[in-house]
Amino acid sequence: MHKVKILPDNATIEIKDGDTVFDACCRAGILIQSACGGVGSCTKCVVRVREGNAPPSPHGTRNLTAKEIQDGYRLSCQLGVHNDLTIEIPPGSRFYGEQILTVGGASVADNGLNPNVRQYYLQLPEPHLEDQVGDFERIARMLARDVPELKCDLEQLRDLDALLRESDFKVTVTVCGSRLLKTEPGNTRGRVYGVACDIGTTTVAGYLLDLTTGRELAVASRSNPQAAYGHDVLARGDYADRGPAERRELQDLIVKCVQDIAEECCKKARVAPEHVYEVVLAGNTIMTHLLFALNPRQITVSPFTPIYAKAFKVPAREIGLDLSRWTMVYALPSVAGYVGGDITAGMLATDLRNRERLTLFVDIGTNGEIVLGNNTRMISCAAPAGPAFEGAKISCGLRAMSGAIDAVGYDAVEQDLYVTTIGDQAARGICGTGLIDAVATFLEHGLVDASGRVVDPEEAQGQLPPKLAARVVHGDNGSDILLVPVEETLEKRRDIRLTQRDIRELQLAKGAIRAGVDMALLVWGVTGDELDRVLIAGGFGNYIKPEAAKKIGLFPPEVTIEQLEFVGNTAAVGAKLCLADAEQRARVERLPQDIEYIELSGRKDFPDVFMSAMLFPGADGFEDE
Amino acid sequence: MHKVKILPDNATIEIKDGDTVFDACCRAGILIQSACGGVGSCTKCVVRVREGNAPPSPHGTRNLTAKEIQDGYRLSCQLGVHNDLTIEIPPGSRFYGEQILTVGGASVADNGLNPNVRQYYLQLPEPHLEDQVGDFERIARMLARDVPELKCDLEQLRDLDALLRESDFKVTVTVCGSRLLKTEPGNTRGRVYGVACDIGTTTVAGYLLDLTTGRELAVASRSNPQAAYGHDVLARGDYADRGPAERRELQDLIVKCVQDIAEECCKKARVAPEHVYEVVLAGNTIMTHLLFALNPRQITVSPFTPIYAKAFKVPAREIGLDLSRWTMVYALPSVAGYVGGDITAGMLATDLRNRERLTLFVDIGTNGEIVLGNNTRMISCAAPAGPAFEGAKISCGLRAMSGAIDAVGYDAVEQDLYVTTIGDQAARGICGTGLIDAVATFLEHGLVDASGRVVDPEEAQGQLPPKLAARVVHGDNGSDILLVPVEETLEKRRDIRLTQRDIRELQLAKGAIRAGVDMALLVWGVTGDELDRVLIAGGFGNYIKPEAAKKIGLFPPEVTIEQLEFVGNTAAVGAKLCLADAEQRARVERLPQDIEYIELSGRKDFPDVFMSAMLFPGADGFEDE
Repeated sequence: MHKVKILPDNATIEIKDGDTVFDACCRAGILIQSACGGVGSCTKCVVRVREGNAPPSPHGTRNLTAKEIQDGYRLSCQLGVHNDLTIEIPPGSRFYGEQILTVGGASVADNGLNPNVRQYYLQLPEPHLEDQVGDFERIARMLARDVPELKCDLEQLRDLDALLRESDFKVTVTVCGSRLLKTEPGNTRGRVYGVACDIGTTTVAGYLLDLTTGRELAVASRSNPQAAYGHDVLARGDYADRGPAERRELQDLIVKCVQDIAEECCKKARVAPEHVYEVVLAGNTIMTHLLFALNPRQITVSPFTPIYAKAFKVPAREIGLDLSRWTMVYALPSVAGYVGGDITAGMLATDLRNRERLTLFVDIGTNGEIVLGNNTRMISCAAPAGPAFEGAKISCGLRAMSGAIDAVGYDAVEQDLYVTTIGDQAARGICGTGLIDAVATFLEHGLVDASGRVVDPEEAQGQLPPKLAARVVHGDNGSDILLVPVEETLEKRRDIRLTQRDIRELQLAKGAIRAGVDMALLVWGVTGDELDRVLIAGGFGNYIKPEAAKKIGLFPPEVTIEQLEFVGNTAAVGAKLCLADAEQRARVERLPQDIEYIELSGRKDFPDVFMSAMLFPGADGFEDE
Repeated sequence: MHKVKILPDNATIEIKDGDTVFDACCRAGILIQSACGGVGSCTKCVVRVREGNAPPSPHGTRNLTAKEIQDGYRLSCQLGVHNDLTIEIPPGSRFYGEQILTVGGASVADNGLNPNVRQYYLQLPEPHLEDQVGDFERIARMLARDVPELKCDLEQLRDLDALLRESDFKVTVTVCGSRLLKTEPGNTRGRVYGVACDIGTTTVAGYLLDLTTGRELAVASRSNPQAAYGHDVLARGDYADRGPAERRELQDLIVKCVQDIAEECCKKARVAPEHVYEVVLAGNTIMTHLLFALNPRQITVSPFTPIYAKAFKVPAREIGLDLSRWTMVYALPSVAGYVGGDITAGMLATDLRNRERLTLFVDIGTNGEIVLGNNTRMISCAAPAGPAFEGAKISCGLRAMSGAIDAVGYDAVEQDLYVTTIGDQAARGICGTGLIDAVATFLEHGLVDASGRVVDPEEAQGQLPPKLAARVVHGDNGSDILLVPVEETLEKRRDIRLTQRDIRELQLAKGAIRAGVDMALLVWGVTGDELDRVLIAGGFGNYIKPEAAKKIGLFPPEVTIEQLEFVGNTAAVGAKLCLADAEQRARVERLPQDIEYIELSGRKDFPDVFMSAMLFPGADGFEDE
């Protein structure tokens, strides 16, 4: 065992010889960012060695600059400990559990209140010699109209005899679906709550609903703590594939997160967690697998099959979620490995299958999930956008956290670029919306051409205003565009630039989404001008500027800015609907059969469509509407 | 703590000051008989103090003879330990787990084989880009015709991905009802077994069935180990009512017993317990409550309501039954607190509801359960026979174990009574069948009159042959009839006599059964001569001599000996049918609604009917057919 001192925490942790700093810190609760799942490629987990001997790893040598290595920077996921060390974790590597705006909030009451969890105050006839039915059957008989086949566990029967008699056969029963959850003495009706939870790869948001009124009482959210094991689902899938202990570890993280959120909501609303009878969860298929400690491995390799796709309900305690011993968990069904419960929730929230006119639904994230449909047909596909929109794989990429550049514009007076950051902090990096904005601006002002090539510095000198031209500099691989010089950054470690490779990453991401949209239209047999609305969902989608999306060609040219509709966090709204309305739940369970899923990688015509989709609109393409 | 040495075991156990010898012995696995549940009234638990100071308890003084007390005999349930002792447990007090003949064995194959547990060898199509359904859905799709709504637990999904791929998607799945129990690689079809178990108050019998052929492979039985806490259900109910720990204790005993039986069957048949997928249990309502650790208290007091009466299924591990992690337990439904799963099983076994002609079904035990019915109507009631038929409450009563008198006849040459015992041992006491036989003989030869009075010794001297008359002696409460003098008994402790009180106990028992039969006929509106068959069920019923039953008037006088049919252990047969045929299971679940239950204690006319029923037929009553 070696002693490793962690700065600025000033904590000392013991690390087994050979273990990595990354793993040991995570175990000690000091969370470090990672986007690649610990394989040394993303450099998000960089730390600085202040004391002790720690030679750079091969990955570190390749992915960090010589100056960084000389200054003691190392990739913590590759840094095996063989002696005592002092390590500093730079703020940019720290994984913050900071709160992120939760969006969307359609009133559930508008959609009708018919929750799966119901409560009844029963004044049961007392048994006598001419009415000897059992205690449970006495309850079941009274509920027979509403719940034709009441079921229960042994636990619910355990002291039912004493309870009924001590309460003079006046009891409040709580039923979830056809399952008796709880019997309480007297009339305690009215304290029935549920939590709807959107388990995003990045953010987890929970909503406490009063199931007697449909009112939303509280909201809370957390970063998904599994992000410490990889920003994207694939990296987490790799970690989960290592074995049952790792799956349990990821399960524990997300369950603890849901629990914290539920408890925070309860605290805000002054609700006892024991009155939370159901937790409805909408997440993508991999998140759902991790929640149940199932190995998502087969979703990550062709032909991308989940272990389980149907809606799943289970007592909360079976997954370690501890609100009360009767709380149930319900996870929305998936359509396929990459069209999960978050998307079926979105279908509910946007009522896609009842729309008369052709509607395109796009959830933009690490994967772009696309559904094209109306009340006659629904087609879905998943476009592997990659994590560029979330800031990963971009040299200075960041999640949308404070200090992240979220807008890049052109100041016509200064004849130069300007940037704004979240929270008006000194810049730390650039997030997805900033990236789209930046590239839209670059395209508009000639820093990048329709093929995605950044102009040469020499070329720029002649064609562009001087301040703009000065931002184009030689990089390792083509040209870089300087956004914020090192001395103006928060960490003063290096410039914030977008490299040629960063632009290519964005092209891959937007190309994937656009190709998915184009393929869906192709399969349906229509073109973009037959679309009525384009619904953009997801926490990230909400922040995209429609003009920027249009400029980079995220959607077919026929789609006007006016047709774009930002529908917010439809996963959360769908989860709430399922919590508040048993009819919606029945509907969501039928969706997987009703949606045609197109596997893009199985289509011979996909590579061509994808290649075209990666190009940016030509200079005159902007007007091509 | 005191040291107590137990003879003849020569074991020394530590007993906490004040604890009883009975409780401490039971905890140490040295089982002692008890019929009263430890309240000091039955004297079954008598032990002999060989060394140490142990003054007699008030109960001991009242219920043992002065000579017994002087010889050191004490009631172990009342014997609190306050110093070191040496205790001898006489053979008659020892609770033997000895094996009892299990009866009944209708071939299940005759009744059609359509078990609830089914196994399928599936050659699943391998996933590809045009067939991406989930692993579980892939299985469900293939079973859809047989199992429209396949369900499973998280556990069954856990490694399903790896299992399917390692076995090239060729797997054997085992399904119980609509529940996926297990998935195995390759074709392992054919190893599907189930255990049907009749949980009697006295005896537990289990039958191992091959569910692919319907063949019965092995049988095993045990005394119900809960008998150490009381011979009858009421005493056990009292013990269970003490608290959750006591209920758990009784549950553990019966579950361990079922487990031992199942394992013994498996061993005999060379079957791996992990291939036992279902255990079907038929027991009376109190036995079923104890099996599930539910408090049967309310069944034992008016108005006699169970906590739960429906059929109940639960994973075996939830009650601590450990055959495999996928084994399921199914308990047959009850009609009422005293017409339990053993009787609904009996209805199946005798096909009562499909008979055209009026049939009486009687299960004779501590309670006499009575069903009168045909294909138009079924009426049931429960007659509180008490434990006399099982030897309890009879001064020299014993269960049907070796050394128990099982027949008492009249030797016309010797002009005297003779007795036979089980196993031709020296006599130890008298069991229920012996008792009925004895009283029938007494009635026939004038030792007892139709009112149940034993003749005075003086009266006997004049009227009866000398050897017979010499058997009538003065007792504590009227006359006693000597069966075996002390010197010919096994234990040489006291005479085996039947007392006036013993005769009264028998009258109460037979009166209850007869009154139940009479009430059922009365409610239906028929007399005994409209009966087609009288089916006598239960392990005990099987041993009753029809002539003796007739002589004591157990059934209405119109019923001839030819109409009596001993149908054996119908509880076991019904359990087997439910195991082997899902259709029978569906049928048994409908029975509780279809049977009218009469609560005898709720009928104003019952006391009169009961009073008449207690009388024995008059001397000429024998010919009254």
